[in-house]
Amino acid sequence: MSEQDQDKGVSRRTLLGTTAAVAGIGLVGGAGLSTTRELISPAAAQSKQPPTVPARPAIQKSEVHPGDLDEYYVFFSSGQTGELRIVGLPSMRELMRVPVFNRCSATGWGQTNESLKVLTEGLLPESREFLKTRGGTYMNGDLHHPHISFTEGTYDGRYAFMNDKANTRVARVRLDVMKCDKIIQLPNQHTVHGLRVQKYPRTGYVFCNGEDRVPIPNDGHVLDKPAEYRAIFTAVDGDAMKVAWQVMVSGNLDNVDADYQGKYTFATCYNSEEGVNAAEMTANEQDWVVIFNLKRIEDAVKKGDFKEINGVPVIDGRKGSPYTRYVPVSNSPHGMNTAPDGIHIVANGKLSPTVTVMDVRLFDDLFDDKIKPRDVVVAEPELGLGPLHTAYDGRGNAYTTLFIDSQVCKWNIDKARRAFKGEKVDPIVEKLDVHYQPGHNHTSMGQTKEADGKWLISLNKFSKDRFLNVGPLKPENDQLIDISGDKMRLVHDGPSFAEPHDATIVHRSKINPVSIWDRADPFFADAVKQAKADGINLESDSKVIRDGDKVRVYITSSAPNFGLTEFPVKQGDHVTVYVTNIDSIEDLTHGFSIVNYGIQMEVAPQATASVSFTADKAGVYWYYCSWFCHAMHMEMKGRMLVEPKTV
Amino acid sequence: MSEQDQDKGVSRRTLLGTTAAVAGIGLVGGAGLSTTRELISPAAAQSKQPPTVPARPAIQKSEVHPGDLDEYYVFFSSGQTGELRIVGLPSMRELMRVPVFNRCSATGWGQTNESLKVLTEGLLPESREFLKTRGGTYMNGDLHHPHISFTEGTYDGRYAFMNDKANTRVARVRLDVMKCDKIIQLPNQHTVHGLRVQKYPRTGYVFCNGEDRVPIPNDGHVLDKPAEYRAIFTAVDGDAMKVAWQVMVSGNLDNVDADYQGKYTFATCYNSEEGVNAAEMTANEQDWVVIFNLKRIEDAVKKGDFKEINGVPVIDGRKGSPYTRYVPVSNSPHGMNTAPDGIHIVANGKLSPTVTVMDVRLFDDLFDDKIKPRDVVVAEPELGLGPLHTAYDGRGNAYTTLFIDSQVCKWNIDKARRAFKGEKVDPIVEKLDVHYQPGHNHTSMGQTKEADGKWLISLNKFSKDRFLNVGPLKPENDQLIDISGDKMRLVHDGPSFAEPHDATIVHRSKINPVSIWDRADPFFADAVKQAKADGINLESDSKVIRDGDKVRVYITSSAPNFGLTEFPVKQGDHVTVYVTNIDSIEDLTHGFSIVNYGIQMEVAPQATASVSFTADKAGVYWYYCSWFCHAMHMEMKGRMLVEPKTV
Repeated sequence: MSEQDQDKGVSRRTLLGTTAAVAGIGLVGGAGLSTTRELISPAAAQSKQPPTVPARPAIQKSEVHPGDLDEYYVFFSSGQTGELRIVGLPSMRELMRVPVFNRCSATGWGQTNESLKVLTEGLLPESREFLKTRGGTYMNGDLHHPHISFTEGTYDGRYAFMNDKANTRVARVRLDVMKCDKIIQLPNQHTVHGLRVQKYPRTGYVFCNGEDRVPIPNDGHVLDKPAEYRAIFTAVDGDAMKVAWQVMVSGNLDNVDADYQGKYTFATCYNSEEGVNAAEMTANEQDWVVIFNLKRIEDAVKKGDFKEINGVPVIDGRKGSPYTRYVPVSNSPHGMNTAPDGIHIVANGKLSPTVTVMDVRLFDDLFDDKIKPRDVVVAEPELGLGPLHTAYDGRGNAYTTLFIDSQVCKWNIDKARRAFKGEKVDPIVEKLDVHYQPGHNHTSMGQTKEADGKWLISLNKFSKDRFLNVGPLKPENDQLIDISGDKMRLVHDGPSFAEPHDATIVHRSKINPVSIWDRADPFFADAVKQAKADGINLESDSKVIRDGDKVRVYITSSAPNFGLTEFPVKQGDHVTVYVTNIDSIEDLTHGFSIVNYGIQMEVAPQATASVSFTADKAGVYWYYCSWFCHAMHMEMKGRMLVEPKTV
Repeated sequence: MSEQDQDKGVSRRTLLGTTAAVAGIGLVGGAGLSTTRELISPAAAQSKQPPTVPARPAIQKSEVHPGDLDEYYVFFSSGQTGELRIVGLPSMRELMRVPVFNRCSATGWGQTNESLKVLTEGLLPESREFLKTRGGTYMNGDLHHPHISFTEGTYDGRYAFMNDKANTRVARVRLDVMKCDKIIQLPNQHTVHGLRVQKYPRTGYVFCNGEDRVPIPNDGHVLDKPAEYRAIFTAVDGDAMKVAWQVMVSGNLDNVDADYQGKYTFATCYNSEEGVNAAEMTANEQDWVVIFNLKRIEDAVKKGDFKEINGVPVIDGRKGSPYTRYVPVSNSPHGMNTAPDGIHIVANGKLSPTVTVMDVRLFDDLFDDKIKPRDVVVAEPELGLGPLHTAYDGRGNAYTTLFIDSQVCKWNIDKARRAFKGEKVDPIVEKLDVHYQPGHNHTSMGQTKEADGKWLISLNKFSKDRFLNVGPLKPENDQLIDISGDKMRLVHDGPSFAEPHDATIVHRSKINPVSIWDRADPFFADAVKQAKADGINLESDSKVIRDGDKVRVYITSSAPNFGLTEFPVKQGDHVTVYVTNIDSIEDLTHGFSIVNYGIQMEVAPQATASVSFTADKAGVYWYYCSWFCHAMHMEMKGRMLVEPKTV
C-alpha cells in the first residue's frame, strides 16, 4: 500500500477504542459516533493503523476457482436500494440482482406490464389515490429482511419473503424463476420493520412488525396526540399473500422471530414508553419482548374476538390480553433470534451490554399464568457494547454482533445458563474484531434446525479504510468468517452497496431454479390471454393489431432477429409491445429497447414481456435487442415509424 | 459439484465447437447461436464437460486479503442497468455503484432536486415536451462505454465520460466525489454507441458515434424513406459538456477511438450499405473505417463550412469530403482500438476472422491524397471467429476477443506486420478459452501510453454453467486473466449483473477522491442559495419556512439526531425538505426517508440533499434516517404532521 493510500482518512478502529470507552460511561442518550466526534482531536484522528492481515487462514476451502461453484446461496437484502441480491458463498460474489421495491433499467422492472401488476395490485386504496401523480407506484423501498420459506424447520426452496420498511410493504420472490411475484401493502400498520417466517409446520405465516405508532385510521383526524397512536403486528398468509390477522400491541415492535413448534412468535420492543422522540423512547430502564400465542389468536379470529379495520381482523393484544405476554428486558433490545436447538431465543440488548435468553418450553406456563414473565429468562450474559443480533453454529454456541465494540462475540448458551444460575463460569468463548460496526450477522443454515456451523457473515455498516477510496459515499463491508474450527477466522472483506442489512445463507441443495421459462407460467399469463383474444400465437406470430387508437404489436425474438423489422403507429396511439423470446437456449436472454422513447425490458428464454406507452413523438425510432445475444446482435433491430398527427 | 448440478443445463462449450464449424462455412447472414440451435440434437446438448480448473495459477498476487487494498480501479459500464460501477482489481469486488441514467432507490437519484437537475437540464427541448407525461425524465439508459479523461496520453483522474445508447445521451462523472454532474442529449443523432475521449493534449473532446440512421429533423416528415436517413458523429466539449461540432457521415458508426497525437479519431462502420434490416446491412463484402481529421474539421467550423442544425454546427463528412477518409475493411467491423505505441490502430472484423491494423503515421498522406485508403493498412492477421475488441500489453502484443470461438487470441503486432509483407511468420502467440462469448476486453492501463501488461479482463456475455443457477436470467462473466508472464492465466470468474459491456482499468495512483464533501461544492449550490435567501444557515439551523402553499423544511442531521423531531404541513402543500449532514466523520452517511410517502435520499458527510413533493395525504408520517449511522440509528426519526384540507 502506498503512503498516499495510508494517509487517506481517519481510522475507524482508532475512533472505536474511544467510542467504546465513552459509551461505557453513559450509554443511554447518545452512545457512539456523534459523541466521539467532539472527543477526537483532528491530530489524533489522523493516526492510522496498518490494515489487519488475518493471523489465521481459513480451515475450510474459502477460494472458489474459475469454473467451481459456490456451496451456498446467500439471499442478501439491500436496505434502501430496494432489491434482493443473490450472492455465492464462500466466494461472496454477487450472482444476481432481483428488483423488488426499486426500479430496474435493465429488466424494465417498474415499466413492463408484468412488473407494474406486481407493484400495484397489492397497494392499499389510499396509496393508489396518492400515487396517481407519481406514476402509480412507489419508486423506492427499504428492503431489510429476506427470509426463505420453511417446511418442518428447514428451507423448502419455494419463496423468499421480505419487507419494505419505507412504504409498509411485504414482497415474495419465487425461487424457481427468481422474480418477485407478489407485493402487498399492510393496512393499519406504519412501516414493516422486523420480518420472519413460520418455521413449523410450514410457511404459512409471514410475521411483520409495525415499528412506528400512528393513529388508526391515519387520515389526519388525529395528529400530534401520541397517546392515540397504535402499533400493529401482522401475520401475512404467505401462500395467498393476504393479511391473515393483526394484533394491536403496547409499545412498538422492532425485530421478530418464530419458534420451531409453530406455537409462538416473539418481537422486541424498544419504545415501551410510547414516546415520539429519542429521549422519550429511551427514558425507561427496561423495555420488553412481546410473545404472541398463535393458537389463541387463531381461535380468537374464529370466534370473532376482533375488530375488523380496513378489511382485516385486528385483535387487541395490548398488555393484559390473553393473546400476548410482555417479558421485561433491558432498555431498547434489538435483534430477536431463535436458536437451532428449538429451545432458546435471544433478545439482543443494543443499549444494554447483555443479551436475554429465554426458554420457549416455559411459554405455555407463562400464558397459563403459572409463572411470571421474567421466569422465562434462563440466561442474560454480558457480552460487550451494543449487542444487535445473534447467530448460531448448531454446536451450542452463539455469535453476537457488538455494534459499538465492532466485534463478534462467540459465547456458549449452556455456559450462559449455568452462569445465570450462579455458577462461576464465563460464557464468552472468543471475540473477533470486525470492520466496522456490525449489524446483522448470519451463519450457514443457522436460522434452521440444520445449522451446520461452517460460516459466519458479519454485515458491517462502515468500511471506511478497508477498500480503495470511492468518494464520500463508501460501501458497507460484509465480512466472511470461518467458524468451523475452535477459533473464528476472518477470510474475506466483501464491499457492498447500500445496504447489507440482512442475509440468509442457504445450502445450494435447497434451491433449484429453472433455466427456461415455462410457456404456461402465470407471470405473463395476461399477455398470453390478450394474444389469444387477438388470434395471435405468441410463439410464432409477429403482427400489429389495431383496435381504435390502441395498437398491440406482437414480436417474436430469436437471435439475431426480431419477427418484425418495422411497425407503423400513429402519433397519440396507445401502444403495447409484446415480445416473446422463442429461443430455448439457456442464458440466451433478449432485450427490447426503443431509442429516445425511454423503453427497455428483459425477455429471458421462452418468456413474454410487454410494455405500454403513448406514441407521443412522431418520427423514426429504432428498437434494438439490448441483451447481447449473438455475433450479429448489433444488427438485431427494427424501426417504429410514428406517423405525425394530422392537425 | 453434485450430480444434480452437473445435470443442470446445456454446456455452452459443447455448443461452441459446433457453432465455430458452422460459422466457418457461412459467416454472413446468421453465424452463431441461432444456427446452432437447429443443429444440436437434444441428446448431444445434454452432454457436458466438467468445469475448467485453471492449469496455471497466477504469477502475480491475485488474492486481496482482508484489509489489503486493490491495486487498480476498474470503471465498469453496466449496459442496460444504466449505472457506472467501480470495481477493485485484482479482487474484482464491486466497490460502488454510481447511478447515472438509472433510478436509484438508495441515493434518491432521479428523486432529489440535485439529481433531477442533472437528469433534465441537458435534455433536448423535444424530449422535455415528450417526457412531461413521464415524470420529466427518462427512466432507463444503456450505458456502454465509460472512459476516463486524459492529459498527455494518460489518465488525469478528473472525469469519467460515458454514453447512453438508449436515449442518445452523454454523461460525465466527477471522480473526486464519484457523482454524475452533467448529462446532455445529442441533437440530430440517433443513439450514441461508441464513445471514446481525446488522449492528447487532453480531454478535450468526447467522441460519440451515432449508430442508427434517421431523418434530420426526425419529426415524422420522412418515415419509410431510408435514402433520406443520415448518420451523425459528434464531438462533445468535455469541459463545457456541450456539443462542439457534428459530422454527417456515409454509412453508420459503431465503435470509435482516438490517436495519441490529437490529430485523428476513427470509427468502424458496419452498415456502409445504409440498409434498414440485417440482410441489407450485411450485403456488401466490405464495410469501412472512417477517419476524421480534427484540424480540418476545426478549421471548417472556424470558417463556417457547416450547416447549423438544432443549434450545433454540422459538417458534411460524407464520402468525398476533405474532412474524412473511408478505409475499406471486411464486412461489419466492430471494435476500434488504439495501441499504446501511438502508431497502430486495430479494427476488429466481427463477421470476418481478421483484424485490420493501420498505421496512423500514414494518415497525413492519406488526407493529402498521396496514398490510397487501403495503403494505411499494414497488417490484417486472421485470428479466429468473431473478433470484436483488442487490448494491449505495452510489450507489442495484442489480445483480441473472439466472440464465436469464445477465446482470447494473443498476437504480436510486429509479427503481423511482417506476415502482411509476406514473411512466413505466425503472429498468433496463444489462444485462451473464456466462458463464454467475450465482447469487450481490457488490459491494465492498456488504453493509455502507460499500458503495464499485468492484467486482462474478458467481459463475457454468457456465464451459463459457471455459477450457481439463479434462474432464467443469468449473470454475465467478467474473467480476470494474468498476462504478466509468457502464458495467459485465468485466475477469476466474476459474475455481473447486466451488462459487463465495457470497462477501463486505472491504476489507483491516478484516482484521488475526497471523503467529505466541501460545503462550497456546486452539486448542492442551489440548496445553499435558497437557504441564504430564507436566512437559514444550513449547518446549524433546522426550521420550517412557509411561503404561501410552498413549504421549505430545513433539517440538520447529526448522528443520532435530526434537527427537527417533527414538522407540520398542510395537505396540498408543495414541500421541499433540505437535509444537511453536519457530521464530518468519514463514511458517516445519513439518509432521509418518509414512510408511505415514497421519499428516500442519501446525504453523505457535509453534503446537503433536497427533495420536493406534494403533501397529498393527511396524517402522521414518520421520517427516519435510512443509512445506518449510530447505535441509536433506529431512534433517529421524526414525524411529518399533515393537517387535512378543510373542505
